[in-house]
Amino acid sequence: MQFHLNGFEPGDPEISDPAKRIQSSGASGAVPEQVDVLIVGCGPAGLTLATQLAQFSDIKTCIVEQKSERLLVGQADGIACRTMEMFHAYGFSERVLKEAYWVNETTFWKPDDFAPEKIVRSGRVQDVEDGLSEFPHVILNQARIHDGFLDVMRKSPARLEPYYSRRLLDLEVDPAAGPADHAVTARLERVDADHVGKVETIKARYVVGCDGARSTVRKSIGRELHGDSANHAWGVMDVLAVTDFPDIRFKALIQSAKDGSLLIIPREGGYMVRIYVELAKLDVGERVASRNITADDVIAKAQRILKPYTLEVKEIAWWSVYEIGQRLTDKFDDVPESEIATRLPRIFIAGDACHTHSPKAGQGMNVSMQDAFNLGWKLAAVIRKQCVPSLLHSYSAERQAVAKELIDFDREWAGILASAAKAGGADAARTQDYFVRHGRYTAGTATHYRPSVLTGAASHQHLAQGLIIGTRFHSAPVIRLADAKPIHLGHAAQADGRFRIYAFSRAEDPAAGGSAIRTLCDFLAEARESPVKRYTPAGADIDSVIDLRAVFQQDHRELAVETMPALLLPRKGRYGLIDYEKMFCPDLKNGHDVFAMRGIDRNAGCMVVVRPDQYVAQVLPLDGFAGLASYFDGFMLQAK
Amino acid sequence: MQFHLNGFEPGDPEISDPAKRIQSSGASGAVPEQVDVLIVGCGPAGLTLATQLAQFSDIKTCIVEQKSERLLVGQADGIACRTMEMFHAYGFSERVLKEAYWVNETTFWKPDDFAPEKIVRSGRVQDVEDGLSEFPHVILNQARIHDGFLDVMRKSPARLEPYYSRRLLDLEVDPAAGPADHAVTARLERVDADHVGKVETIKARYVVGCDGARSTVRKSIGRELHGDSANHAWGVMDVLAVTDFPDIRFKALIQSAKDGSLLIIPREGGYMVRIYVELAKLDVGERVASRNITADDVIAKAQRILKPYTLEVKEIAWWSVYEIGQRLTDKFDDVPESEIATRLPRIFIAGDACHTHSPKAGQGMNVSMQDAFNLGWKLAAVIRKQCVPSLLHSYSAERQAVAKELIDFDREWAGILASAAKAGGADAARTQDYFVRHGRYTAGTATHYRPSVLTGAASHQHLAQGLIIGTRFHSAPVIRLADAKPIHLGHAAQADGRFRIYAFSRAEDPAAGGSAIRTLCDFLAEARESPVKRYTPAGADIDSVIDLRAVFQQDHRELAVETMPALLLPRKGRYGLIDYEKMFCPDLKNGHDVFAMRGIDRNAGCMVVVRPDQYVAQVLPLDGFAGLASYFDGFMLQAK
Repeated sequence: MQFHLNGFEPGDPEISDPAKRIQSSGASGAVPEQVDVLIVGCGPAGLTLATQLAQFSDIKTCIVEQKSERLLVGQADGIACRTMEMFHAYGFSERVLKEAYWVNETTFWKPDDFAPEKIVRSGRVQDVEDGLSEFPHVILNQARIHDGFLDVMRKSPARLEPYYSRRLLDLEVDPAAGPADHAVTARLERVDADHVGKVETIKARYVVGCDGARSTVRKSIGRELHGDSANHAWGVMDVLAVTDFPDIRFKALIQSAKDGSLLIIPREGGYMVRIYVELAKLDVGERVASRNITADDVIAKAQRILKPYTLEVKEIAWWSVYEIGQRLTDKFDDVPESEIATRLPRIFIAGDACHTHSPKAGQGMNVSMQDAFNLGWKLAAVIRKQCVPSLLHSYSAERQAVAKELIDFDREWAGILASAAKAGGADAARTQDYFVRHGRYTAGTATHYRPSVLTGAASHQHLAQGLIIGTRFHSAPVIRLADAKPIHLGHAAQADGRFRIYAFSRAEDPAAGGSAIRTLCDFLAEARESPVKRYTPAGADIDSVIDLRAVFQQDHRELAVETMPALLLPRKGRYGLIDYEKMFCPDLKNGHDVFAMRGIDRNAGCMVVVRPDQYVAQVLPLDGFAGLASYFDGFMLQAK
Repeated sequence: MQFHLNGFEPGDPEISDPAKRIQSSGASGAVPEQVDVLIVGCGPAGLTLATQLAQFSDIKTCIVEQKSERLLVGQADGIACRTMEMFHAYGFSERVLKEAYWVNETTFWKPDDFAPEKIVRSGRVQDVEDGLSEFPHVILNQARIHDGFLDVMRKSPARLEPYYSRRLLDLEVDPAAGPADHAVTARLERVDADHVGKVETIKARYVVGCDGARSTVRKSIGRELHGDSANHAWGVMDVLAVTDFPDIRFKALIQSAKDGSLLIIPREGGYMVRIYVELAKLDVGERVASRNITADDVIAKAQRILKPYTLEVKEIAWWSVYEIGQRLTDKFDDVPESEIATRLPRIFIAGDACHTHSPKAGQGMNVSMQDAFNLGWKLAAVIRKQCVPSLLHSYSAERQAVAKELIDFDREWAGILASAAKAGGADAARTQDYFVRHGRYTAGTATHYRPSVLTGAASHQHLAQGLIIGTRFHSAPVIRLADAKPIHLGHAAQADGRFRIYAFSRAEDPAAGGSAIRTLCDFLAEARESPVKRYTPAGADIDSVIDLRAVFQQDHRELAVETMPALLLPRKGRYGLIDYEKMFCPDLKNGHDVFAMRGIDRNAGCMVVVRPDQYVAQVLPLDGFAGLASYFDGFMLQAK
């Protein structure tokens, strides 16, 4: 798709008339008086969380935002492979793939050894290693990501819309309230012209602060961002420009001899480009605002760095200057470390409210959305009485560790860029090497949750060496047995709050009496200890809490769907229709053997338990019934 | 995507609340008094045409429909690969791919040799041969295809919406009118409750009848459908059912010993299935309505054919009985054969108004949309004064020949099914063989326009043996030079009325002085005879009429974008921004070499000229400047 040729216009580029692209959104009237969850802030974290909760018609959510309308321009734009996988689960990856710029290769530039006033290309690498994800690394205006979430939210069972023009004043927690009570009272001030100053109160069981680096929610629970604050000032601009710089449509990292670094991020639509420009080292405590830097200053600096190439900026769609260090909150909820055993969290923070860092690694928006994806299903499961409330402690435990890694990575990466710049770009090879080595990290696939009630030990990891416990389930292409459709195994996972068990069959005939798959299905369908039996409410579809999928070793034409265990052909819904989408085979014709690709033990087979946020929770033997039962017994509540 | 589990609900399945899926559409108020094109009928042909014309803000189109709102249920559902290619050009292939059932394999069933009262599987074939198209054969409710067009229309430059509840009364042509006059007067009767009986008149330069088998437009130009009328009655149902028939999620052709044939077409959402059931041979002149066949009769017949398998229908989403022969109109416009040289067409017919046949080959909707795709760009080019009005004669010439082939195919296929049924299914092997041999036909890729002013002779076909002149441009995977994006070469073609020249380079360095590509660019950019110069209006982007794309033989990392001819880096729009999307390289890493895949002569290279409806118009040598010029001079008008 090509657009923005005659100037940047916000909104859906498929709508020809720019004036029609800006439809007002948002709920009208007063906020509800009482909700299960109040989300403060309509950024990537808030919208990810709201969209997840909106999947459940029995959860009452309210999301508020201080701004008067949806975001239209600027801010983040990098979307890691892992985030695309999440977007697929949310149902809008296709739109993002269509509209976004795809980061296919990254190039590196440094001063010419013989004429250091000129830059020369020093390297060119594939941006994402082969097979790391079924999705590419893409770039798209954050505003359009918001639109994707807003659209899904609006269409969801809970039909959610944000309340705009609400500023959070304060939160008050009733210390005497019971665990099911609406213990948190939030006061919101309206800032829209017609109601300015009007204060609304809303009672919530849980409040989540997705309200950015200056988070009021964070302050209300007495937490702070710790770490370095700004040292270097950077400029960022989204521009329409004419240049003879050859890599203007590649992500390019440019280090000049004397003028610092510049990062090119090509943007959606074929014409726009984002440019990050290193500006100046600030004094201790100094803010970049004090320098009165103009857009022309940023452009002039970019032009100096890019020499001998020219850059003629025709339009600035958005620009900003910023100084940002690496800062982190030590806990992401309102329960002090010392009280974890005795208190349940009611207030959470996510995204920039917990961690701030440089935007140049393209991580911020991604990590924020993964924060919310982690929290969302847990909140839903607790509110819906599927899981024990203490599960909510795992949010801060899991995500604070991830944020810590992010901060460390960002500090190291900023250091390398700075030292390379100091060395006049002489360290270009080191920069490129670091970039390649950390590709999995920047793709978002390196997140690795440590053993906990949710994440099993590695006792049986050898049964599935490519599906690492604690990391996201790495999808692979397969063929669906019942209709021979080529499909991605991981795309069974929608953001629907369900756990999934992928049962990888042994080499035997899975339909035979006594096969390991049949025995597993018998256990799950019949045994008193079966987590499927224990945790599925009466009257609900058999796969509504734990969704069993089977993967066979044979070619799909060698197996007869009608001979398979009944649990793999479940009867669902009010008519008892058969769900035919539970069984898969390797795509042998195209050379994609999921057993080989993911290191599954062909003799033993295995079960891979996957959390609702797509992380591998357990790898177990196919007959590991006790282990399976005890895993779910660790945090689930028996269905009423 | 899974949906319809608890009953069929029309509209967008991504909207959770069925009540919200049915938003009223349609223009309000009176129809305009004067338009360039009046389209009668909102079926697949009418909507394809309207959506094409809506791409041009300088064309005034009105589309009217007798029904009171958009289609919600039933009718056609088969979408051939070729149609998916067209949907990509229209901009909504992604949505269809996501929502539709994919036809991956087709199975064949016949009576058991030893127990003929039972059916047994006799064969199983891949539905579409490898590499035939980058798109699969899919199945989706016609109503959802309509929604795709309606959505694109609404967002298009002309922002078109249909006028519903309008019945065409008659057309009158002013015989004295000049070629640019609004010579046709249409009288429309409103049939909506508030305005029933009110007659509107609308004057149009062109009228297109997409008003179905009983077309009023066709009658107004004195044309008739000729051919066999009904002989066999069939029933068709979209059902939610429980069955132990193992191939219920495959397209399956079932021939029973005594009860005739049945065709299973699995449908979108994972649960619904369409079943065609052979009912009875009718007497001469008899209509199926006279038999008073009920839905229960159709189900009972299906149950008999499927024995020993059971079929328990839980809900009927839609059903119908029909009798249909193969019928064809001898010309698709209002100009008699004998007056072609002296008269220009003003009234056209498309789709079922021209040809009716059995639905079981899944061709009807597809051929109708291709009719309209063929006509749309021609009407636009004539109205916009880009092409000579006599070009409009080519619509009937090209599409009537295609319809003739369709009718012949359908008659033959119906005959094979009938004779196989008569033979008690003994001819199952012959049926399967015929199905496989005609796979390209049913995929919609066999359409082959004969030499004409629009379609060149085969003189240089040897330069591109896999891009057959007169057939649709067969896409292939490539890498875009400027950003290394993996892309499909054919996806450069949007439904924007532009001609495209794909210049396949010689093995030489394309950037070198005197290279064939550079010489071609020099010709196109500079020469007085250049069709790009001659037919591009002053002030318009250089690629706005004829869009040049270059395909090189080298790996994309071996070429430097900045060394390429300026015409391949055109400056566009009000800022003169550079369009970087004109150059492509083979995807050698993944083994996709477009030169090998499409039989391009590596030493000579070639130019492939592609029409706005994606058909290969010409294959010419890279230096075939005179041939190129004379091709366009044959039907284009010099730009003012």
